[in-house]
Amino acid sequence: MNIVVAQSGGPTAAINASLLGVYKQARQWPDVNTVYGAKNGIEGILKDDLLDLDTYLSTQEAQTLLRQTPSSFLGSCRYKLPSAASQPTVYETIRRVLEQHDIGAFFYIGGNDSMDTVDKLSAYFAQVGCSIQVMGVPKTIDNDLVHTDHTPGYGSAAKFISTAMMEMIRDAAVYDLPSVLIVEIMGRDTGWLTAASALPWLNGEQAPHLVYLPEVPFTADAFLADVRRMQKQTNTVIVAVSEGVTLEELSAFQSGDVDAFGHKYLSGIGKCLETLVKQKIGCKVRSVELNVLQRCAAHFASDTDLTEAERVGAAAVEAARAGATGQVAMLQRTGDAPYAVTTACVPVCEVANHVKYVPRDWINQEGNRVTEEALAYIRPLVMGEPALHTENGMPRQLRIK
Amino acid sequence: MNIVVAQSGGPTAAINASLLGVYKQARQWPDVNTVYGAKNGIEGILKDDLLDLDTYLSTQEAQTLLRQTPSSFLGSCRYKLPSAASQPTVYETIRRVLEQHDIGAFFYIGGNDSMDTVDKLSAYFAQVGCSIQVMGVPKTIDNDLVHTDHTPGYGSAAKFISTAMMEMIRDAAVYDLPSVLIVEIMGRDTGWLTAASALPWLNGEQAPHLVYLPEVPFTADAFLADVRRMQKQTNTVIVAVSEGVTLEELSAFQSGDVDAFGHKYLSGIGKCLETLVKQKIGCKVRSVELNVLQRCAAHFASDTDLTEAERVGAAAVEAARAGATGQVAMLQRTGDAPYAVTTACVPVCEVANHVKYVPRDWINQEGNRVTEEALAYIRPLVMGEPALHTENGMPRQLRIK
Repeated sequence: MNIVVAQSGGPTAAINASLLGVYKQARQWPDVNTVYGAKNGIEGILKDDLLDLDTYLSTQEAQTLLRQTPSSFLGSCRYKLPSAASQPTVYETIRRVLEQHDIGAFFYIGGNDSMDTVDKLSAYFAQVGCSIQVMGVPKTIDNDLVHTDHTPGYGSAAKFISTAMMEMIRDAAVYDLPSVLIVEIMGRDTGWLTAASALPWLNGEQAPHLVYLPEVPFTADAFLADVRRMQKQTNTVIVAVSEGVTLEELSAFQSGDVDAFGHKYLSGIGKCLETLVKQKIGCKVRSVELNVLQRCAAHFASDTDLTEAERVGAAAVEAARAGATGQVAMLQRTGDAPYAVTTACVPVCEVANHVKYVPRDWINQEGNRVTEEALAYIRPLVMGEPALHTENGMPRQLRIK
Repeated sequence: MNIVVAQSGGPTAAINASLLGVYKQARQWPDVNTVYGAKNGIEGILKDDLLDLDTYLSTQEAQTLLRQTPSSFLGSCRYKLPSAASQPTVYETIRRVLEQHDIGAFFYIGGNDSMDTVDKLSAYFAQVGCSIQVMGVPKTIDNDLVHTDHTPGYGSAAKFISTAMMEMIRDAAVYDLPSVLIVEIMGRDTGWLTAASALPWLNGEQAPHLVYLPEVPFTADAFLADVRRMQKQTNTVIVAVSEGVTLEELSAFQSGDVDAFGHKYLSGIGKCLETLVKQKIGCKVRSVELNVLQRCAAHFASDTDLTEAERVGAAAVEAARAGATGQVAMLQRTGDAPYAVTTACVPVCEVANHVKYVPRDWINQEGNRVTEEALAYIRPLVMGEPALHTENGMPRQLRIK
């Protein structure tokens, strides 16, 4: 029999390490003939767009490059699988394509939405008596999946954010005049990534002075009071804010601004707070949006993250080999000093469509800092850097064409 | 006698390597007792705010960390030295402070505006018969100084830009639908940094498909035609654009603020083009501003750049020891295969207030790509990575307090 693996959702620096883990472990499974990759997630299965991964990944060099290549080697999709009751033909198409290729197990590497696909598909196969196994391999920079200590992809994003923050702290402090720097960090619903911006405290930095997560209420008045208070202590106030914090003034700000073409100009919380500081405090202020590099900056990935991402992929294959289906491979922290993890599988229905928030007691009372416990949790996940293979001064990458 | 060194202008990843070069070479100069650092550039001299650098830089560990620390260890300023005729007291203050500390030579590490300070101060000292030597050490990510093959700081910024571009190319290509990614790159007047975004072509990439430098005219109509043409060839069109390109529609996005030198703050070309694509083409579009990380991302600096930055600092000290004043240490390329440089000094009056543009024949006829010659020039400057010392997963940094 054969197996197929696909990648879904937003890119991370570690999702290809999980692909590598699935591929290598599947090559150790004697029953498996061909390891297929489906292009663009579940869409590639619906379109019967499968690749024989031996063509791309069989050499040591290709595997080394795959591990250091960000984003999804196989491409991705945002396809939301409809319910089997409403659109049975979608499920029948998936089953037919998989059976035509003699697929015994399907591995889906992705975040919350992808786990929903694993859940629905495995439930459907169970219902119709189809023996194809469906397994989830988690990835998301957001770290918002339940039942896992953390998600592969988070550690690398956290490492880039904390390192960029360290560098922006140095950058912002060079002029001898009052200024405010606002750094907008990804995370629509949860503050895991923004919390990582406080790791520079472990290296003796005072900044970022204020850290705002979406888990707690946020108001313009409290923000301005926080900034004014910090300005009494330091010339350069540095603020880390999650893109997901909600602010009444944000909608007014967004709907009020009109661009050069007469269209409403949508901008994020960082730009909004920059305007607020400019208007209400009047000092020099800059906002920086870390943007997509948070999820694709493989040039300074966490080696711990890459190693764990590969392990999780391999663990899903081992579980499938032992008969599992409808499950997700997870990381369990078994030690803190030294840090250690093991892998385990849990039923996907317990994971899909749930969200893991930063615990309230990892955020200070005032809601403008994170606690030492939060940093102790994040720290081991950002440790280590891969030895990069470069070409013309840039990290080499593996790509399909 | 003693010497003093100061840093000025915008941060780079390599300006501290030049400080290290000055310090180490000055420690080899038998006549020099104390090597002072002035805080916040020329302002630190005006305020008599000098540090004995032995306190901070005498150990091997400190020197290693200084080399990998971005931004200005001594702080910076944007102070514009008035003319000696209009404000003689400023010059008299500088002379008095320097003489009080028995300063024989002053080394100023900075960009174009700092070279203007070196020019004015050395001319004043010559005029009043003061023997204090004044030497310039160039740095700027913009690479816009004349009489040097390139400026320290440019290589590291170029390396970060090209690497980030490689990663964003992977990131942008994962979805199987038409999209446009616009990457806004620093460079007020010159396109050197934007040209570096095309280095991924050397690694086999098609992207960035369109590269716009401020050296050539830019119009919305030509831009939209370029994008539409590229969309026939690829799903994901990636555009690199300098913050300095001029566009009639841009004016409404700009604040109109100017800094101490009369430079207009530029922001918004990326957002402006994003809006243009949304309105006129209607596909998925995102703009990314690489922002301050271009000048401070020391975590992936060019080792070639750091080494040369140190050499240039040392060369300025050697020239001063041989009697030079009113000069700037420069890099001359002496070979291409293999790449090699040597240092030399030129009179600062030939450098200050001149701008080196990207040659027109390094840009294609249509003004939307750079040529192979441009890439051949940039490539050696981004080679190599320093072996980083890390702490808690982040590069360690040296700071005054």
